[in-house]
This record gives sequence, structure tokens and C-alpha cells, in this order.
Amino acid sequence: MSGYTVSPAQPPLPTPSPFSYSVASTRWNSSPSIHTANLYLRFLALVLSFGSALSLAVLSPTETKVKKHPTSFLDYPQLLYCFTANIMVFLYAAYQLFKGICDIAHRGIFISDKVSDYISFIFDHLAGYVLVSASSVAVQTIQQMDNGNALWKAALVSVCMSFTTFLVIAASALLSGYKFCKRIIW
Amino acid sequence: MSGYTVSPAQPPLPTPSPFSYSVASTRWNSSPSIHTANLYLRFLALVLSFGSALSLAVLSPTETKVKKHPTSFLDYPQLLYCFTANIMVFLYAAYQLFKGICDIAHRGIFISDKVSDYISFIFDHLAGYVLVSASSVAVQTIQQMDNGNALWKAALVSVCMSFTTFLVIAASALLSGYKFCKRIIW
Repeated sequence: MSGYTVSPAQPPLPTPSPFSYSVASTRWNSSPSIHTANLYLRFLALVLSFGSALSLAVLSPTETKVKKHPTSFLDYPQLLYCFTANIMVFLYAAYQLFKGICDIAHRGIFISDKVSDYISFIFDHLAGYVLVSASSVAVQTIQQMDNGNALWKAALVSVCMSFTTFLVIAASALLSGYKFCKRIIW
Repeated sequence: MSGYTVSPAQPPLPTPSPFSYSVASTRWNSSPSIHTANLYLRFLALVLSFGSALSLAVLSPTETKVKKHPTSFLDYPQLLYCFTANIMVFLYAAYQLFKGICDIAHRGIFISDKVSDYISFIFDHLAGYVLVSASSVAVQTIQQMDNGNALWKAALVSVCMSFTTFLVIAASALLSGYKFCKRIIW
């Protein structure tokens, strides 16, 4: 809003490039710092949720000669729940990151701001609750597994990353709640 | 704020009773409907969390002659977690309900509005995340218990109530987030 209230004595803005944050600030109706923080958080959520899902999928050996005890995370529905939750959060973070970069790169309307604010608000909160639920269940499963094998380590890495993703998503939910409230009040 | 801007032609307000909502609306700086909805939600959370904790404490028999398998929820750390979470939510809801009734009954400053908005915002979100985590863990424990005994039924009732409490707390968190954002923006 206040990005374009230039006083007459002041020279014009030096960077009319579409990559400058002033474009984003008029489009998002919020300060550039919030937009930047939002993008960083989305990127972090993307990386962490991908890492969490990947560690379960790669680190746990799926085939063994001696099938004495379950060695794949697919044998534990709780770990599968954690895996699915992280994959969904990954897809959602990818969408949000794509939208944020579209907003900065050009002003082509990928999705209207109003719809986007509603979507962000609802899905950020949903993702946070699903992630904390999945992580808690996975922690309990890890406690019941026998320590030291490859699946146990993979699940431990996955849960740590999943909890960090939850913290990031919770911060994103605060930001999207702020933007949503601004939209309702104004 | 706008409740006291009386025009000269208009007669004075007919109900100067301290129980009228105009007092609350000027104090909360938001519409009376939000304050009423907030109070209803707090009351619901109070009842449900109390019911959830009570069902675990009362319905599960703590002493049996034959101690073949655990019959008290204290033997399951997951159910104890759910019980503790619900007790904490109960205490928090009691505090919020007490504060809301204080605001309606008289304008004595129990706690300043600014501090209260911050507290509500933080603890509503925390309570929601803790409740959904505790409920998820308890659901998994119920799945692993043998069906049909008294503790199983008590845990089932408790988890259902705990999930409903979570929904109520999530709605409260939306309201407190709205009030918090209004305070930040204005």
C-alpha cells in the first residue's frame, strides 16, 4: 500500500524491474518482508518434508533374505501415515512456492489473491494438525520398535524432520492467518 | 469503541446495566457475537475436556484381584499423556471462562486485554496441537489394546471427547487469532 506514496522531492524508484519486491508488495497487499519470510518458510517446508519422506523410503531396506521381523516402513501403518502426511505437505509446499515465485516473476494471475489467502489459511492449519498427529504416532511406533536396525534409524530421522516441518508449517500458518485477517477486516 | 458515540438527538442508551453486552464490546474491541461465541466455545471445551479426563479416571477400574493385564490408564503412558493434556486444557478453559464472565459481570480489570489476547493466541494454538497429538497417540494405543474390557471402553469415550475438544479449541484459536491480528494491525 505505502510502497508507491512517493513524495515529489524524492527521485523515482531506481528498480522498475518486475523482479523487485515492490511488485509483490502491491500484489500481496502486505509488506515485502512478510512475502519473503513466507517464501523462505515454504522452501524450508518443501525441503524438510521431502527429506522426511525420502529417509523413510530410501533408508529402510525393503527386501531382505531373512524375513524375521518387518523391515519396511510399509509394514507399519503408523509410519505409512507419517510418510503420506509428509508427501502431502511436500506437494502443498511445492504449490505454495510455485505461486510465490509466479507472483514475483510476473504479474500473471496464477490464482486470485482472495482464493489463495483462503486456501493458505485452511490448508496451513490442516497441514499443521496432520503433521503433529502423524509425528506423535510415529514417535510411539519408534519407541515400540527394536533399537538399532536400519528401519529404526530411518524412522528416527524421518520423525525429527517431520517435527521440524511441523514447526515451519506452524509459522506459515501464523503468517497466512495474519494475511487472512487483514483480508477480512479490510 | 463505537458504542459510546451517541448523537445529540438520540436518547441515552436504555440499558446501562453492567450485564449488557455493550460493556463487553467496548472492552473487547470486537463485536458482541464474537465474545458470546468465544464464551460458548470455552464452556464447551471445559465440559468436554473434563468429560474426557473423567471417563479415563472413573470408568477404568484401578484395582482388580487378578492382575493379568493392565487395567488402569496409569499403566499406559499414552493414555496418561491424553489425560494430562485434557486436564491442562480443562484448567485453561476454566481460566478463560472465568475471565470472560468477569468481563461481562463488571469492568474490574482481571488481566489487561493486551496480555489476555497474547495469552489466548499462544495457548489456544498450543492446546490444539497438544490435544491432537495426545488424541492420535491414544487412538493408536486403543487399537493395540484387547477389545471389550472396561479400560478399552473408557479410553474410547475419552478419545472421542478429546477429539471434539480439539475441534472446539481449534475454533477458539481462530477467534483468538482474529482478535490478535486486529490488535496488531490497529
